[in-house]
Amino acid sequence: MSRTVYVNGSFVPEDDAKISVFDRAFLFAEGVYEVTAVLGGRPDRSRKSSRAPRPLARRDADRTPAQPCASSARLHAELIALNKVEEGVVYLEITRGVADRDFLYPEGVPPTVVAFTQSRPLLDNPYAETGVKVITLPDLRWKRRDIKSTALLAQTMGKQEAKRRGAYEAWMVENGFVTEGTSSTAFILDVNGTIRTQPLGHHILPGVTRRAVLRLAQEEGLAIEERPFTVAEAMQAREAFLTAASAFVLAGGGDRRKPIGDGRPGPVAQEFRRLYIEEAGKG
Amino acid sequence: MSRTVYVNGSFVPEDDAKISVFDRAFLFAEGVYEVTAVLGGRPDRSRKSSRAPRPLARRDADRTPAQPCASSARLHAELIALNKVEEGVVYLEITRGVADRDFLYPEGVPPTVVAFTQSRPLLDNPYAETGVKVITLPDLRWKRRDIKSTALLAQTMGKQEAKRRGAYEAWMVENGFVTEGTSSTAFILDVNGTIRTQPLGHHILPGVTRRAVLRLAQEEGLAIEERPFTVAEAMQAREAFLTAASAFVLAGGGDRRKPIGDGRPGPVAQEFRRLYIEEAGKG
Repeated sequence: MSRTVYVNGSFVPEDDAKISVFDRAFLFAEGVYEVTAVLGGRPDRSRKSSRAPRPLARRDADRTPAQPCASSARLHAELIALNKVEEGVVYLEITRGVADRDFLYPEGVPPTVVAFTQSRPLLDNPYAETGVKVITLPDLRWKRRDIKSTALLAQTMGKQEAKRRGAYEAWMVENGFVTEGTSSTAFILDVNGTIRTQPLGHHILPGVTRRAVLRLAQEEGLAIEERPFTVAEAMQAREAFLTAASAFVLAGGGDRRKPIGDGRPGPVAQEFRRLYIEEAGKG
Repeated sequence: MSRTVYVNGSFVPEDDAKISVFDRAFLFAEGVYEVTAVLGGRPDRSRKSSRAPRPLARRDADRTPAQPCASSARLHAELIALNKVEEGVVYLEITRGVADRDFLYPEGVPPTVVAFTQSRPLLDNPYAETGVKVITLPDLRWKRRDIKSTALLAQTMGKQEAKRRGAYEAWMVENGFVTEGTSSTAFILDVNGTIRTQPLGHHILPGVTRRAVLRLAQEEGLAIEERPFTVAEAMQAREAFLTAASAFVLAGGGDRRKPIGDGRPGPVAQEFRRLYIEEAGKG
């Protein structure tokens, strides 16, 4: 490991990339984050007006920064260049800052801003050919899932359980309906040929890739309903797929008990992946 | 600030007390913690077989520690001595360790162990005389509240809302029943003179102070029911009180709309506080 990591205005070797034990994200999970894909050495282009710049800007306005806080776009560009990332992701986290431990929010404390890169192949993903197995689990999460916070313990537990059961992802189920995956948005192409996914609300994360795929579907003239679907509906669907910042669109092939469709990535999911990647890579 | 903080086997000045930005608690809230009161320069004595030593021991057995990991008891004693704490708390946090970011659990990674002290008066608490105001809020938390994890965002949001509304604590309500406070266990002495609190389960934290108070109540021959109570039952109760590691027993005086009892700390709550402090301070 020899990455250069951004910590509060400085670019430092990753072994020196440290934050205080009094950071609110370490003590209280008071951090928000964003993951941005990198393709061809540039941030994903499909994510116009994405989520990341807003918290950075809002927090800068609210507080006295302890450090010169680069714009999100410049920060991403610099990190990608410094780490010579051709394909991979940029992770950005902003926390409520450092203060002696107290449940009450500290006042006048600058936010902590951390960002790092991960180089890895995204386009050449074997799962794009094979599809992925998905299990279902009860949704254990809190009721403000629209906040993209670092309080991710339920999600890592779910992802680990998926791996233990030989799957790639777990779809979480609440009141009989699939909410979303532990780190992805869940979609089906239902028996009527309609693309279905949860509407926005406190119960799911408003994924940036979700939004891009819905826009692409609209541009393609496909039928879309932002309406929840049950596990039974997913099992009977023509296709099932998931979206995430670094996985783009991956088709769910069902599980060992019953494949979805013919158990292979369906044509609609594959077309979305192609369209999404085309747009993401646009110069 | 000039405390000495424990980080992975070393005692360091608090300004140097840092952990990697790749720590699982910073990225995923994968940390567990414990707070232990200090009275007369010694850890709270009422907390026999408390929660803290177990995770430390369990994690040591599972993994290869990167550092000589003191026993929890010795670690507490050393920190108290180094920081000359007469009254206050010791905070101990153990995380899943440092690894490049991935929802899947890392393998073969030693846990991160951090501990620090906070000196502050506990016995001389003005709220012991006046009682505290408590508001109620919907319980937004996840479904594994028995895990004392650092995924505390719902709790800090609730505590901050309590402060905003001029209160000391927020009692969280689910399906009409009070589950617990954002950082304390909720009790009432109901209209029949029975002490009521939630039974243990995934829906509340098994507080160590809660357990000690239930034991004291039993020793005093009081009627106890581990059975949930509604907000209406709390408002009609003879007394209401809360317990926490550093607040011991504090009586809830109700809110501005309606006081509980006569709006002053009730005799049973006051007796519990006295008994608890007596036992906590035993040499």
